[in-house]
Amino acid sequence: MLHCLIIGAAGMLGDGLAKRLVKDGQIGGRKVGRMTLFDIVAANTPSAEEIGVTVETGDISLPETATDLIASRPDVIFHLAAIVSGEAERDFEKGYRINLDGTRHLFEAIRKAHEADGYCPRVVFTSSLAVFGSPLPDVIGDDYIITPRSSYGTQKAIGELLLADYSRRGFLDGIGIRLPTICIRPGKPNAAASGFFSGILREPLAGLPATLPVDTSVRHWFASPRAAIGFMAHAAAVSSELLTERRNMTMPGVSATVADEIEALRTTAGEAAVALIRHEKDPAIEAIISTWPQAFDAGQALSLGFEADESFEAIVRAYLEDYAPAVERAS
Amino acid sequence: MLHCLIIGAAGMLGDGLAKRLVKDGQIGGRKVGRMTLFDIVAANTPSAEEIGVTVETGDISLPETATDLIASRPDVIFHLAAIVSGEAERDFEKGYRINLDGTRHLFEAIRKAHEADGYCPRVVFTSSLAVFGSPLPDVIGDDYIITPRSSYGTQKAIGELLLADYSRRGFLDGIGIRLPTICIRPGKPNAAASGFFSGILREPLAGLPATLPVDTSVRHWFASPRAAIGFMAHAAAVSSELLTERRNMTMPGVSATVADEIEALRTTAGEAAVALIRHEKDPAIEAIISTWPQAFDAGQALSLGFEADESFEAIVRAYLEDYAPAVERAS
Repeated sequence: MLHCLIIGAAGMLGDGLAKRLVKDGQIGGRKVGRMTLFDIVAANTPSAEEIGVTVETGDISLPETATDLIASRPDVIFHLAAIVSGEAERDFEKGYRINLDGTRHLFEAIRKAHEADGYCPRVVFTSSLAVFGSPLPDVIGDDYIITPRSSYGTQKAIGELLLADYSRRGFLDGIGIRLPTICIRPGKPNAAASGFFSGILREPLAGLPATLPVDTSVRHWFASPRAAIGFMAHAAAVSSELLTERRNMTMPGVSATVADEIEALRTTAGEAAVALIRHEKDPAIEAIISTWPQAFDAGQALSLGFEADESFEAIVRAYLEDYAPAVERAS
Repeated sequence: MLHCLIIGAAGMLGDGLAKRLVKDGQIGGRKVGRMTLFDIVAANTPSAEEIGVTVETGDISLPETATDLIASRPDVIFHLAAIVSGEAERDFEKGYRINLDGTRHLFEAIRKAHEADGYCPRVVFTSSLAVFGSPLPDVIGDDYIITPRSSYGTQKAIGELLLADYSRRGFLDGIGIRLPTICIRPGKPNAAASGFFSGILREPLAGLPATLPVDTSVRHWFASPRAAIGFMAHAAAVSSELLTERRNMTMPGVSATVADEIEALRTTAGEAAVALIRHEKDPAIEAIISTWPQAFDAGQALSLGFEADESFEAIVRAYLEDYAPAVERAS
């Protein structure tokens, strides 16, 4: 019976992951018997008849928090907790405290438990495309250099390095997964530079207007929340024997232009939805987006069985099924 | 008048750098007026008539040490201090404490000084080829991924990431230089896996026998101590305007096989010296060396004016001039 710990369980992906584990009931054929859901605020408790679920709250940047979380020796640890990109850029100290020190305290707590009794959990660490920085090739391979251009990306890149070293040492059995940009992100519009990628679909699907601040030729790398949650669940199940020393890898995704997004909206929701998109360039956002990756060759992840969404239209359909079942569909 | 701080000044390269700065008397056309030489043990004081030299000792892994070193606001900081690869692998905690925490404390002390009064020194950080891990191409370009296979390499890679982020933020003006394997390293033989690269030359040049544990076809990437010290001095002088966001770069070197080394020994010291090399394979060392880089395309560093030794023979001649003037040479 596996005990799974989700650190960062109150977020959109953490919440979805908890529900997914309840639904699956197992990881790699081993039954999930217990889940601990940790975050700075209380996570939702999924309804689970056969799984004992504990919700805990605390500050992951304090060393004792990780020690407490490790005391019960969870078999699988999903480490999703992070201050997001914008906040890590605005508040330098907080970003390093949560994203770097928090991760290091967790790995150190695991190392000390390993030295005490041989403990060696599978650790799934969610990294980000933000580890990549321009200049970038059109298609980024698994061998391309990591040169982040944000403090958030730097902190994630350092987490990847630590994960690899602690795994190599045998203290933990880590796998780092760089998630594509999540689209369609459910919920309300936000101020992130990437917000429009979801907004130009989510808002029109709800009959609301949305602003597109970049050209329709802009290309980026996407995964649905469903696919991202699938990556995490699969990462927990990948056999240790298949993992090389390269423990961190880019997840497969859908490379799509804004025009592809709009076409998928047209197919799923009709011309009236497309008409709700207002084109209004924002040079500041255009400048930021111009440095972002467009596509990857995620060969290592594909060889390990990670599966992307089938198309951008599949991304929109997944959103409608998972988050907006009440929305009327075209045709 | 520049004030230069060398952290790690008691080591072979730190000692050579201090002498070089005294000899040059300037960095990028600005006069060196003061030098602080810091290490865990007292560094040698170079004889300097026109430069005030202060020797300080302390533990760089303590936050207050960095704060004290920054109090006098040195204009140029050379951060060479590190626990070496073998020791960082044997003593996990010590390696992270010195190589990661020590570097971070230094950068944090600089950031706090920056926030107090706008301080922004040039920081020259010596990194290592150990940031690279197999599988590696025959010639490694500036865009190749960093996947260290040692804790030392991991710590250096994290130092590079921090240097880049603190530079991007404007807290410091950093440049990270990955030094080639130093050859011929003066002094006594040591137990490092790389020791033979120097040993098979240094010992025969002194009339002593040496053991070669690998095949003569083994290829690696080298710089003389003179060239490495030149890299550091040049890194201090590179104009900030020429530095992109990619603040860390591989230094140019000489790609040479062991056979090339032996040929250079033959040219400089004759057949009798070559005859002192005993060929005795060591599978453990062969296995380690097989994962090491063979050659680099150090385009970024070359474009910034860093200069490698001219040939392997030049490396041997530099050693004879700098460290073994009494050795008789074959004519």
